[in-house]
Amino acid sequence: MRVRVSTPATVANVGPGFDVFGLALKEPFDVIDVEMVDDGAIIISVTGLGSDDIPVDPKRNSASIAARFVLDAAGADFGVSLSIKKGIRPCSGIGSSGASAAGGAFAANMLLDDPLPNEVLVLAAAKAEGVTAGKVHADNVAPSIIGGFTVVRSLSPLEVVSVAAPKHLGVAVAMPDVMVSTRAAREVLPDSVPVRDLVFHVGHAASLALAMERGDLGLLGRSLRDAVFEPMRSSLVPRLAEVETAAMDAGALASFLGGSGPCVVSLFDLRMNDGENIVSAMKGAFEEGNIDSESWVTACGEGCRRLVP
Amino acid sequence: MRVRVSTPATVANVGPGFDVFGLALKEPFDVIDVEMVDDGAIIISVTGLGSDDIPVDPKRNSASIAARFVLDAAGADFGVSLSIKKGIRPCSGIGSSGASAAGGAFAANMLLDDPLPNEVLVLAAAKAEGVTAGKVHADNVAPSIIGGFTVVRSLSPLEVVSVAAPKHLGVAVAMPDVMVSTRAAREVLPDSVPVRDLVFHVGHAASLALAMERGDLGLLGRSLRDAVFEPMRSSLVPRLAEVETAAMDAGALASFLGGSGPCVVSLFDLRMNDGENIVSAMKGAFEEGNIDSESWVTACGEGCRRLVP
Repeated sequence: MRVRVSTPATVANVGPGFDVFGLALKEPFDVIDVEMVDDGAIIISVTGLGSDDIPVDPKRNSASIAARFVLDAAGADFGVSLSIKKGIRPCSGIGSSGASAAGGAFAANMLLDDPLPNEVLVLAAAKAEGVTAGKVHADNVAPSIIGGFTVVRSLSPLEVVSVAAPKHLGVAVAMPDVMVSTRAAREVLPDSVPVRDLVFHVGHAASLALAMERGDLGLLGRSLRDAVFEPMRSSLVPRLAEVETAAMDAGALASFLGGSGPCVVSLFDLRMNDGENIVSAMKGAFEEGNIDSESWVTACGEGCRRLVP
Repeated sequence: MRVRVSTPATVANVGPGFDVFGLALKEPFDVIDVEMVDDGAIIISVTGLGSDDIPVDPKRNSASIAARFVLDAAGADFGVSLSIKKGIRPCSGIGSSGASAAGGAFAANMLLDDPLPNEVLVLAAAKAEGVTAGKVHADNVAPSIIGGFTVVRSLSPLEVVSVAAPKHLGVAVAMPDVMVSTRAAREVLPDSVPVRDLVFHVGHAASLALAMERGDLGLLGRSLRDAVFEPMRSSLVPRLAEVETAAMDAGALASFLGGSGPCVVSLFDLRMNDGENIVSAMKGAFEEGNIDSESWVTACGEGCRRLVP
């Protein structure tokens, strides 16, 4: 049996929700073809964006590691062959590695007679991210598998609370031609923060979760703030402040660094704006600093799903 | 014109929501009679629980200060006389001073031809708390005025997001015969916290807000956790851990220090439990440490409201 699945890009952190919030995007996404292999092995191949830099050793690739965790959890007596076509550029800040991990777990699960529940898939993918990135985290893999907006209440035990993203929430993304390694983005962060910043993040995170649940886009815009992490990382992405200001001036509800960057993500109300002027403004603000960028308009999306080949 | 209003006790902090979350209780409450005074003065009298220790200087009493802020904000050309009957014991951890401030603002507002909106009343009461307690805070006054569960997204500018508390949420309270000053409770707190504690509080706070909004009492119980503040304050309330454990063993969803203590508050599902065994268990656990306590069962409540005299 051969099955094709898609696994979406995601934005992690999302304002006050460092390591907690994530949002699935409609585009871009990876496509994974999976089929059963009799001898229990995991075989992997990768094509598409940035594929030259992605390891194809099954013990070092997040998709194959996640698939292995799923097969082991199910006690499966077979292996899988995964053919990944990357639509999401690695190191861009929109969860490329997380999408592969999520897709590997989801694809392997499609071959089981008794599929495992989403929470097991999220855990498998989060653990795979731990193997490849050095830190178990679920803020990308959770929305990649479940879709919409997700809240990682707890990693151990894992609990993810999911919220259907507001219907009218548009997403504009600008990806500058700048490299930010996840490691560098982590290294600039502090070990501790003032209590007043905890209070700020708690107040804004609770409000943002309620705004998502209610589809209250005004409250969403006022709540999507980060007092700690993005300010620390702003030096890693030249022109960040100018790009965000340009997006807000063009009508965005909020504009922020996607994940650990360098993508800049702006949210907007699809009833008020088609987003084209926002991506133009973002692209233009990068250009003023002589920085090329790729930019596009999309929306919040579903999680991993089966495609009809 | 003479008007009578009630102003409820509230629980602030509420698990992960230090300085952000608050919950209005059905009982106890203060009752305030208010009437117009022609010469612009504020006159105040206080009777009831703990009234001997409450200042009646209008410049030092939170109710009269809040009333003054409301009259000034409205440009009123009259003063008010406030007669407060305290049903909420001061320094108990259930927002006694906040209820007075809220009630003072709400009562003065009842006398205006064009009443001010709730957010102005919350701001007036929060500023009054700032005068009497040394720190502007809205986590008690917001639920006292609005009712239900409240999230203070931001103090400046003030924005409060309110959530109707779940219909089946019961509250059991045990008030031990122990004094905890708000000042002492603040002094034991750290100035800064590890980033992992911020992540914990953000994840749990967002989940708790969603649990309140959805009426998901299971999620509410799992989300109502505090990694930082209550652990620091546990030494201020003898037997706290034993009382909370006793409440959980008796079927509570969560058990925690109300505000800065010494009240211990347990939440439970009214469909599963009438709460009597929970208050008995809490009282018993205090008694085993030779500590007397007053205890009662109540529910989430409305905010300030007019009573028919």
